[in-house]
Amino acid sequence: MLEKTTRMNYLYDFYQALLTPKQQSYMSLYYLDDYSLGEIAEEYNVSRQAVYDNIKRTEAMLEEYEEKLLLFEKFQERKLLITRMKECLTGEPELQTLSDYVAAIEKLD
Amino acid sequence: MLEKTTRMNYLYDFYQALLTPKQQSYMSLYYLDDYSLGEIAEEYNVSRQAVYDNIKRTEAMLEEYEEKLLLFEKFQERKLLITRMKECLTGEPELQTLSDYVAAIEKLD
Repeated sequence: MLEKTTRMNYLYDFYQALLTPKQQSYMSLYYLDDYSLGEIAEEYNVSRQAVYDNIKRTEAMLEEYEEKLLLFEKFQERKLLITRMKECLTGEPELQTLSDYVAAIEKLD
Repeated sequence: MLEKTTRMNYLYDFYQALLTPKQQSYMSLYYLDDYSLGEIAEEYNVSRQAVYDNIKRTEAMLEEYEEKLLLFEKFQERKLLITRMKECLTGEPELQTLSDYVAAIEKLD
């Protein structure tokens, strides 16, 4: 479950701009702010089932976007390569310029 | 016009998976294979206006996706940083491992 939560947090991070405002609100409360389905239902004055259905649909949409665009997968691969580059550059102060570029690439994700 | 074509080629490259098969076909014939609107219309047995409208709508969708996800913008920024890293690494054979990581990051885009 923790693994799924982490994955959903990342997918939400990458694709939230493609969701509707309501989907964004529910997902953000559920996954980022750790609200329960019941608490979200109360907040929006809808049934717990409606919130559940909306979140399940949104999760499926996020997985579909990831299947098509692979942003999370590429992010993970880039992250690994950046970590390795940093290891190469540790303790090499004369390569500061390269370190700066690596840091800039990392920041872009 | 050439600049617009280049931009559309890139946006199509990044977001084509989010388009319908018909949108993909029209865009690919028009932007990659340089078909005219009339030729596409003939190929699909529809009016030239229908093809034009579909392509205009698709172009607007691609721009909307870019506004939301910034994949092309980030790609350009990464490309610039990768070019600079390569410049730092040119003529430094002892830094081959780093060069390999830079090449791998470049390939991910």
